[in-house]
Amino acid sequence: MVNENQHTCSASSSSKSDGGSSSGSESSKDSSRCSTPVLDAERHERLREKMRRRQDSGDRWFSLEFFPPRTANAAVNLISRFDRMAAGGPLFIDVTWHPAGDPGSDKETSSMIIANTAVNYCGLETILHMTCSNQTKDDITGHLQKAKRLGLKNIMALRGDPVGEEWEEEVHGFNHAVDLVKHIRSEFDDYFDICVAGYPKGHPEAESYEADLKHLKEKVLAGADFIITQLFFRPETFLKFMKDCQAIGITCPIIPGIFPIQGYHSLRQLVKLSKLEVPQEIKDVIEPIKDNDAAIRNYGVELAVSMCRELLDSGLVHGLHFYTLNREVATTEVLKRLGIWNEDPRRPLPWAVSAHPKRRVEDVRPIFWASRPKSYIYRTQEWDDFPNGRWGNSSSPAFGELKDYYLFYLKSKSPREELLKMWGEELTGEESVFEVFTCYITGEPNKNGHRVTCMPWNDDPLATETSLLKEQLEKVNRRGILTINSQPNINGKPSTDPIFGWGPSGGYVFQKAYLEFFTSNEIVTALLKVLKKYELRVNYHIVNVKGQNITNAPDLQPNAVTWGIFPGREIIQPTVVDPVSFLSWKDEAFALWIEQWAKLYEEESPSRMIIQYIHDNYYLVNLVDNDFPLENCLWQVVDDTFELLNSPPQQ
Amino acid sequence: MVNENQHTCSASSSSKSDGGSSSGSESSKDSSRCSTPVLDAERHERLREKMRRRQDSGDRWFSLEFFPPRTANAAVNLISRFDRMAAGGPLFIDVTWHPAGDPGSDKETSSMIIANTAVNYCGLETILHMTCSNQTKDDITGHLQKAKRLGLKNIMALRGDPVGEEWEEEVHGFNHAVDLVKHIRSEFDDYFDICVAGYPKGHPEAESYEADLKHLKEKVLAGADFIITQLFFRPETFLKFMKDCQAIGITCPIIPGIFPIQGYHSLRQLVKLSKLEVPQEIKDVIEPIKDNDAAIRNYGVELAVSMCRELLDSGLVHGLHFYTLNREVATTEVLKRLGIWNEDPRRPLPWAVSAHPKRRVEDVRPIFWASRPKSYIYRTQEWDDFPNGRWGNSSSPAFGELKDYYLFYLKSKSPREELLKMWGEELTGEESVFEVFTCYITGEPNKNGHRVTCMPWNDDPLATETSLLKEQLEKVNRRGILTINSQPNINGKPSTDPIFGWGPSGGYVFQKAYLEFFTSNEIVTALLKVLKKYELRVNYHIVNVKGQNITNAPDLQPNAVTWGIFPGREIIQPTVVDPVSFLSWKDEAFALWIEQWAKLYEEESPSRMIIQYIHDNYYLVNLVDNDFPLENCLWQVVDDTFELLNSPPQQ
Repeated sequence: MVNENQHTCSASSSSKSDGGSSSGSESSKDSSRCSTPVLDAERHERLREKMRRRQDSGDRWFSLEFFPPRTANAAVNLISRFDRMAAGGPLFIDVTWHPAGDPGSDKETSSMIIANTAVNYCGLETILHMTCSNQTKDDITGHLQKAKRLGLKNIMALRGDPVGEEWEEEVHGFNHAVDLVKHIRSEFDDYFDICVAGYPKGHPEAESYEADLKHLKEKVLAGADFIITQLFFRPETFLKFMKDCQAIGITCPIIPGIFPIQGYHSLRQLVKLSKLEVPQEIKDVIEPIKDNDAAIRNYGVELAVSMCRELLDSGLVHGLHFYTLNREVATTEVLKRLGIWNEDPRRPLPWAVSAHPKRRVEDVRPIFWASRPKSYIYRTQEWDDFPNGRWGNSSSPAFGELKDYYLFYLKSKSPREELLKMWGEELTGEESVFEVFTCYITGEPNKNGHRVTCMPWNDDPLATETSLLKEQLEKVNRRGILTINSQPNINGKPSTDPIFGWGPSGGYVFQKAYLEFFTSNEIVTALLKVLKKYELRVNYHIVNVKGQNITNAPDLQPNAVTWGIFPGREIIQPTVVDPVSFLSWKDEAFALWIEQWAKLYEEESPSRMIIQYIHDNYYLVNLVDNDFPLENCLWQVVDDTFELLNSPPQQ
Repeated sequence: MVNENQHTCSASSSSKSDGGSSSGSESSKDSSRCSTPVLDAERHERLREKMRRRQDSGDRWFSLEFFPPRTANAAVNLISRFDRMAAGGPLFIDVTWHPAGDPGSDKETSSMIIANTAVNYCGLETILHMTCSNQTKDDITGHLQKAKRLGLKNIMALRGDPVGEEWEEEVHGFNHAVDLVKHIRSEFDDYFDICVAGYPKGHPEAESYEADLKHLKEKVLAGADFIITQLFFRPETFLKFMKDCQAIGITCPIIPGIFPIQGYHSLRQLVKLSKLEVPQEIKDVIEPIKDNDAAIRNYGVELAVSMCRELLDSGLVHGLHFYTLNREVATTEVLKRLGIWNEDPRRPLPWAVSAHPKRRVEDVRPIFWASRPKSYIYRTQEWDDFPNGRWGNSSSPAFGELKDYYLFYLKSKSPREELLKMWGEELTGEESVFEVFTCYITGEPNKNGHRVTCMPWNDDPLATETSLLKEQLEKVNRRGILTINSQPNINGKPSTDPIFGWGPSGGYVFQKAYLEFFTSNEIVTALLKVLKKYELRVNYHIVNVKGQNITNAPDLQPNAVTWGIFPGREIIQPTVVDPVSFLSWKDEAFALWIEQWAKLYEEESPSRMIIQYIHDNYYLVNLVDNDFPLENCLWQVVDDTFELLNSPPQQ
C-alpha cells in the first residue's frame, strides 16, 4: 500500500540546529543524540534530504550519469574515472540498466556491480536505474533486494524499451514505470529514494504532451521523490516543462538532464534512440564541422555552458544532471566553467568515506590501508558495526581474508607489461628492489628510462603530503628501508589547510609522525638497539611474515595518529595505529610482494626468487613518534640505526 | 565448594605488556582488548592484583583503617578526612564492623554506608570488615549481597567478639572466621577479595601460638587472599611471625598492622581490648609523660617510623597497614617521614575517579559538576554503563533527581551559622549577593570580616587552576556576572604539569576556555548581541529556571573542553560541555540557590526574597572559546557586553 501523502515529494524535514533560536527544555530533551560527532550532516541524510538542503541553502549541485562498460578492463577504468570525478563533488551519480546485459548479475560489468562499487568503494551517493518491462515481479523484487543488501539506497524507476516490434500490455505485469514505483513502495516501504524520468518534449510514445504530464504526476503520486529529465536542446524547453509540471501540482524537484554534445556520431545515435529532434540552429553549426571532433566538443561545451547558465539564472534550477557517456573531459569542463565543479572539496575526514548506509558512522580506520582503502572496505564489508569513536573493542569482528587480488575494483590500473617496465624485467638482487622503491619516491625514471608510478602497496603516485618527506624517504629507501606508508607530524594546523586539513572550518588538525617499511633482519636488529634509547617516545611494531611480533605498545592499545579539534564538537580521531589490525594488514602487505610482484616473473626465475626471499625474510616495521610538538625523530632513529650498522663491532 | 588451589593466595597473574619482548601472532590475537584506553592499569585490577603488582615492582604502599563514627556530623567530617587522606595515595582503606551499631543498615553512620561512601564518592579501594559470630547465615548473606550491590569488592572476614561471658560454639553456625571465608567463597565464588586477620603474638584465645598459626593457614586455604596483622610493638615480633607463617606454607601477602601511639588513654583502651602487653621499654617512656598529649604523639610517631623502617628494610614487607583511630595527623606524619605519602599523586584523569567496579571504564564527564563530583556520582548511580569514549548517546540513561541535598556525603561542611556569616546575615539587594561571590573569588574578608570559603556550588575554596583567573573573575563578579565554574585554555602543556597535568607522563594536555555564571536578563540580552560577532568561535548555552534554552551548539553535540594526547594511546577527552546534561545540571544549579542559601533565612524575609528573585529571574550561562591556541576571548566577550550596556541607546 502506498501512502500518497507521505511520498508526494514531501522530503522529510531535516532537523537543523538553528543558531540563537529559543526552545523549551522539553523539546530539547526529545531531540535525538548522535553517537558520533556529526562532522558532515549530509552523511546521515538520504538523497532527497540532501537535495532539499541544497535547495534551501541555495547551493548549486550536479550529478553524473554513467553506463556499465562492456569489458572488465573498461570497468577498472570507469572506477578510476569515478574516483577522479568524485573530486568535483557530485551530489550523486547514476548507473544505467541494460536488460540485455544481465544488469543484476555479479559480473564486474553489470549495472548492479558497478553501482555497488560506486557506493561502497568510491563513496559516491548512487542511483541504480532499473527497468520493469518484460520482467517478472520476482525478478524485480530480487534485483531490489540485492540492491538493498549491497547498500544501494536510490532507484531510478523506468519502464524500459519494449523488446521487439510488437509490444502488448501484460495484464498483471509491469507495463509502465509507475507500476515499478508502486511495487517498490509496496515491497520496500520508504527504504529507497525513487527517481523517475520526465520528458520535456513528452514521451515519444505518449498520446500527447499533456497525457505524458499526467503520467508523470501518477508516478510522483505513486511515491517518486524527484524527477530527472530526458535531454533537451533549448533551455526554454525545460523551463516550460517545469512550469507545466507545477501547474498540474507536481512539486518535487525536477532536475534537467544535460547532454554536452561530444561528437557527431554519438549525437546522432542518441537522437535516434531518444527520438528527439536536433534544432536547426545546432545542425547548422555541426554539419560543417562533423569530422572535427575537437571543434564539435568545443561547441558542445559552449552550448551546454550557455544553456546551464540560463537554467541556473532562472532561479528555478538548483541541480544539473549530466549525461556523460562515460567520458570525462567535456562534462568536467562545463562544470568548471559554470563554477560548480568543487575544486577544493572540504574533506570530512582524512580518508574517503564510503557511502554504504552501514558505514555512515564510520569515523576511525587503521592507518595501514591508507593507500589501499578499497581493500580495507572489502575486508571489512561483513562488519555489522563500525567502530564509532574508540577503535579497539573486544567485540570488533575479524578482518575478512583478501584472497582475490584481482577483483576489478582492487586491481592495478597498469597491465603486466607496464609493471615489468616499472619494477624491472629482471632483478639482479635486493639492491635492484631498493632502486624500484627509490624511483617511486623520487619520480625519476629507472635505469631503463621508465617512471615508477605505482607500487604493489600503492596504485597511485606519491601523495602530496608524502612528497614533503621525499628527500628523507629517498635516502632511506636507497639503503634498504623500503617505505610503504608515512605521514609527517602536525601540531595544530587549521582544518582548512589545503594539504593536511579536513573536517569543518574553525578547527585544528594534528598528526603524529608515522613511518612504515619493509627491511632486513640485520637492520631490524640494529633498529631495536637504537629504539631502546627513545623509550616511550617512539612506539614500534615489527613483524615478519610468520607473525613474529615485537612491540613496545602498551596492552595492544591503538595509538591515535591523526586527530582534529573542532568548534562545539567532540574530538575526532580518524586514524589509528592499531596493533591488532596490523596483524591482518601484515598478511596483506607481505602477500602483495608475491601476488603483485613475484608472479610477474617465471617460477624459479632469479627475479622471482629475489622477491620471494624478501617476502620470507624481511620484517614489516611501523614507527610512531608520539612527541608531535617536537621535530619528528623518526629520521634520527633511522640515521642512528645506519650509524650503528656502520660502526666497528665493540670489544 | 572452595577450590583450594585457586584461592591459596595465588594472585591471578596480571597480563603485563612487556616492552620489547617477542610473542607470536597467535597469542597476540587472543589477548583481550579494552574498549577504553587504559590510562591507569590499576583501575582495572582487583585489590590482590594491585598488591601483587606493587610487590613485583618494589613500590611500597600503605593502607588506612577507620571505624564508623557515632554521629552524622562526625560522618561528614570522616568523609572529608577520606578526601584529604586520599591525596597521599593509600592502596586501600578499611572500615571496621561493629555488630552493636547496626553495621549493615542504611544509617549514615553504619559500616556499610561509610564503606559505600568511601568507594563510590571518595574513589577509594575499600575493605569492609564483617564479623560472623552470633549471626545467622541469612543475615551474613544479606550483608554480603548488599555490599556487592553497592560496589564493594573486598571483605575482611572476622569472627567477632563473643557477646557476653559465656560463648558456646553453635553446631551449624559461624564459630570462626574460617567459616565466614568458606561461606563467602561458596556463595560468591571469586567475586570478593578476602582478607583475614593474623595475630603476631597468637590470638589471645588460642591454645597456643602454633595452634593459632594453624588456624591462620586454614583461613588461607579456605580462600583468603591476604592477611593483615593485629598491632604489635616490636618489628621482630612481626618478622618472626612472618617467617613462621612461611614455614608452614602460608605464601600470600602478610601486611603488618601499624599502630602509631597517639595518646595515653587510647593506648590503654586498645591494649585492654586486644589483650596485648605493652613492652616495658615503651611503658617506661610513656608513663612519665602521660598527661602531655603532644609529647606522647611525638614519641608514637618516632616509634612507628623506626619500626616501619626496620620492617621495610627487611625486604620482606612491601605495604604497611595503619590503625588510624580516625585521626589524621600522626599517621600522615609517619607516612611522610617514611617517604611513602605520595605528595604528588599523578592524576589519571582531571577528575577523581570513583572506585565502583561499574565505573572503571568511566572516562568522560560533563564539566558542570566539576565542583560537585559527589552529586554527579549520586545522580548517575543507577546508570548501568558509563560513556566509554563519546559522551552523547541516545541510549544514555537519564540523570537521577537530586532531591535530598542533605545526604551526608553531599552536605556542606559548614553549619548554618557559619554560612550566614559568610553569605550575609541580611541581604540588602542583588549587589550584596554580587559581593559574596566577589569575596569568595578574592579570598578577602567580607564587610563583617568573615572570609567566604565556600559557595552553594562549591564546598571548597577556589581551585589552583581557577586562581589563575582570579583578577578577571573578581572584575566580572563585581558587576553581576556570578561565576560558578571556569577553566583557562591550554594549548598542549606536558601531562606532568603540576597544575593542569593528568594522565601518564610523556603526554600533552589541552583545554578550551570555559566560563559558567548566573546573570540577569538585562546582561543576557546584551551578551547575545555581542556573541553574534564571535560566531562559531564561542559556543553558548543560556537557560533560565523554567528551561528556556538559547544555544548555538550544533545538533546538541557535546563539546570536548579537556583532552589529552599520550604515547601509544587513543585520545582521552575526560571533560565535555554536553547540552543535554546541562539541562539536568541547570535544575541542580538553580535549586542550590534555594536549598543552600535562601533557606538560611526566614520565609518572607527580604534576604530570602532576594535569593528567590535571582533564582526566578536570572539565567545560567556557559561559554566555550573553541579557539584554544589563541588568547582566551571570553573576557573580551564579557567586556564587550558591559560596554554595550553602558553605551547610549542608538537611534
